[in-house]
Amino acid sequence: MEKIKPRTLSGFMELLPQKQAQMERVMEILRETYALYGFYPLDTPVLEASDVLLAKGGGETEKQIYRFQKGDSDLAMRFDLTVPLAKYVALNYGQLVFPFRRYQIGKVYRGERAQRGRFREFYQADIDIIGDGQLDIINEAEIPSIIYQIFTRLGLQRFRISVNNRKILNGFYAMLGLTEKSGDIMRTVDKLDKIGAEKVRAVLTEELSVCTQDADEILGFIAISGGNDAVLAALENYRGRNAVFDEGLDELKTVVQYLAAFGVPESHFAVDLTIARGLDYYTGTVYETTMLDHPEIGSICSGGRYDNLAGYYTDKKLPGVGISIGLTRLFFVLEDKNYLNENPPAAPADVMILPMTEDIAPSIALATQLREHGVRVQLHCEKKKFKAKITCADKLHIPYVIFMGEDEIAKNIIALKELATGEQTNTGFEQALARIQAGLRNAGKVILDQ
Amino acid sequence: MEKIKPRTLSGFMELLPQKQAQMERVMEILRETYALYGFYPLDTPVLEASDVLLAKGGGETEKQIYRFQKGDSDLAMRFDLTVPLAKYVALNYGQLVFPFRRYQIGKVYRGERAQRGRFREFYQADIDIIGDGQLDIINEAEIPSIIYQIFTRLGLQRFRISVNNRKILNGFYAMLGLTEKSGDIMRTVDKLDKIGAEKVRAVLTEELSVCTQDADEILGFIAISGGNDAVLAALENYRGRNAVFDEGLDELKTVVQYLAAFGVPESHFAVDLTIARGLDYYTGTVYETTMLDHPEIGSICSGGRYDNLAGYYTDKKLPGVGISIGLTRLFFVLEDKNYLNENPPAAPADVMILPMTEDIAPSIALATQLREHGVRVQLHCEKKKFKAKITCADKLHIPYVIFMGEDEIAKNIIALKELATGEQTNTGFEQALARIQAGLRNAGKVILDQ
Repeated sequence: MEKIKPRTLSGFMELLPQKQAQMERVMEILRETYALYGFYPLDTPVLEASDVLLAKGGGETEKQIYRFQKGDSDLAMRFDLTVPLAKYVALNYGQLVFPFRRYQIGKVYRGERAQRGRFREFYQADIDIIGDGQLDIINEAEIPSIIYQIFTRLGLQRFRISVNNRKILNGFYAMLGLTEKSGDIMRTVDKLDKIGAEKVRAVLTEELSVCTQDADEILGFIAISGGNDAVLAALENYRGRNAVFDEGLDELKTVVQYLAAFGVPESHFAVDLTIARGLDYYTGTVYETTMLDHPEIGSICSGGRYDNLAGYYTDKKLPGVGISIGLTRLFFVLEDKNYLNENPPAAPADVMILPMTEDIAPSIALATQLREHGVRVQLHCEKKKFKAKITCADKLHIPYVIFMGEDEIAKNIIALKELATGEQTNTGFEQALARIQAGLRNAGKVILDQ
Repeated sequence: MEKIKPRTLSGFMELLPQKQAQMERVMEILRETYALYGFYPLDTPVLEASDVLLAKGGGETEKQIYRFQKGDSDLAMRFDLTVPLAKYVALNYGQLVFPFRRYQIGKVYRGERAQRGRFREFYQADIDIIGDGQLDIINEAEIPSIIYQIFTRLGLQRFRISVNNRKILNGFYAMLGLTEKSGDIMRTVDKLDKIGAEKVRAVLTEELSVCTQDADEILGFIAISGGNDAVLAALENYRGRNAVFDEGLDELKTVVQYLAAFGVPESHFAVDLTIARGLDYYTGTVYETTMLDHPEIGSICSGGRYDNLAGYYTDKKLPGVGISIGLTRLFFVLEDKNYLNENPPAAPADVMILPMTEDIAPSIALATQLREHGVRVQLHCEKKKFKAKITCADKLHIPYVIFMGEDEIAKNIIALKELATGEQTNTGFEQALARIQAGLRNAGKVILDQ
């Protein structure tokens, strides 16, 4: 029979089992954490009618879309999770309870030019809180605490959540009479980290025709830095000159004020006036999250407040706040920078049982008993040499093996060996279970961050 | 601005939040249970090169495939999880540890004619154990225990796992000299439940030209029934006439023998000689699972042993055993037949906190504290009337609310109300937490089966 060469499309992440186990653990922690904050899980189709998916229209994204005809239908694969959310909320408006809190972890598709670290199929992990007509500022304060919990539970330690408020920026530019140019100015200022202050000044004065004095004001404004209290105090100096600015400052102060109660330490949080987010979509608080040791990666979790989720589907005003993690890219980076824990999070089981008797019923019964206690067990019953089975457990990173020979069965003892240390104990079931459980508790998080 | 009408494609399941929460709980139980049996999670792309995906070729499925051109690439959306597994194992053969145990829960696509209860995008939940050259029979005994655990953990009680062995069937037909017709005969016999014995006999004698005596033998054989011991004893009467039959009988006896150790009660398991599975693919043990109160639904979890997973990609012999749950259809059926628990499994949170003070920091701190103990919390901070907030908790099926007024904060007590009973307690944090946790333990499984 002629064989077809098996292959996976370029730009499509397909992980080996141990890597996939780590990815699954990351997703599990995301799901658990989102659930703690009272978000519904949501799932929407990968395929939508093209006119629905492209309702917002145009732009760079449209060219990248996987779009095709099937029978009479013009179909497209989703390219983000925001448009499907907008569709869902508009479609089911009457049946939802607001504020509507949902998370969604799902694959999206963009036919970008394939290159290292860029994917055509990738997971996004989004949370959004949607209000009906209005949405309280407290929701904007809760979001950084979710970001903090997510990365802390994953094991990342050296990261910072940067927060700003678009109203402060918009209000500031209004003070200078630069409202019409504010979009262009913010896109320029957003590049400060990449191109530096002098280049920003040059773009402002030469390309955007901002006068020198205003450019200096802008650069002075975005240079405001220091601890959160210092930044907020500096911003107070602008109060009273523009209503939108004042509103933004009040919001930012509220967000900062409640962060301690939400459990976010000051060390992991900074007011940063250079954050604007590229999208014109955001209208209030905006967030970015950076790894302190890898600023070159850019933001690993971003989002913000928007006023109108679904304007292209409905007249209802649906303000919201949300964040998104580009999960496939984040995982690629974590692997690339050696952040992933190879140990139990990457193993398919906690224990491998090696039956060494003809009748394997006692081994099976033990596996059943361990599983009832939540221990993940593989039974290795293949006709292989003993040493090959140990090698197999080792290759799978399974931390414990149990030998079930005539002796152990007759004496009703568990011969439990920890592969990393070689230490073997012969005890009763309860002690063996306790040893396994204690070992698993010490196994460490999925990300190892020194 | 002109609006686009939001809509979801026909044949694509998109659930309302409470239903989706139940679906998510079902998937969570599947993931947890598969993990207990030492399966790796696997994830493969939704899109593959068409020649890779259609390597096996042809048949009814090919017409249903979502296939399209993007640039120079001929792409197709996966229509099951077995072909991608075969590709994956062939592609990564050198880097896998065998037996390779994987589960995959993923969406697959078939452009079938849309009708009630049929979906074009649907989840399959598959597990497979793949051997390198050989695979021990014990794996075939372990599979029913996984099926049993899955449905029991979901809450289903009245179901039965039916098991047969294709070698017994093939050996039996060989005894009668009907090997060449055995495929057609088995497909006919497989319809026994639907069309009855007389119609089966008619098809056998008229369409398949089986002589009357052999047709009687066949009907007599498949009529063997009763308890597992009785069926196995009846099968012993055929021993010694055909080697394949004898091998199949030994395998079946081994599977039955170890089931008790694997924790499967006899009540939920039956040897059933009428089970053959339509696919020619299976070569040994085969499984079907039926809901006792809804036999009309057909099998809700099926699979079996096969000898050659990936013959169209590789010369390696890769025998395996696997089962598949058509999750989207199963969920549709469970909802349709009113099996789903509306209570906490469908709620987005366990507790809603209602702040009743200007400074909501104490409410936030309480939410943070409860979340640290694994309690799912929503803070309701919107500017709404008190009664509207209670209604909101009620609509979301959130079982508990906590009122945080001046009094509670001053006295450091938790005013906790259970919405179902109206019972309110005013206690310290630890007692309130214990009450919530006790309530959640009693919340019931996702399936309520009387």
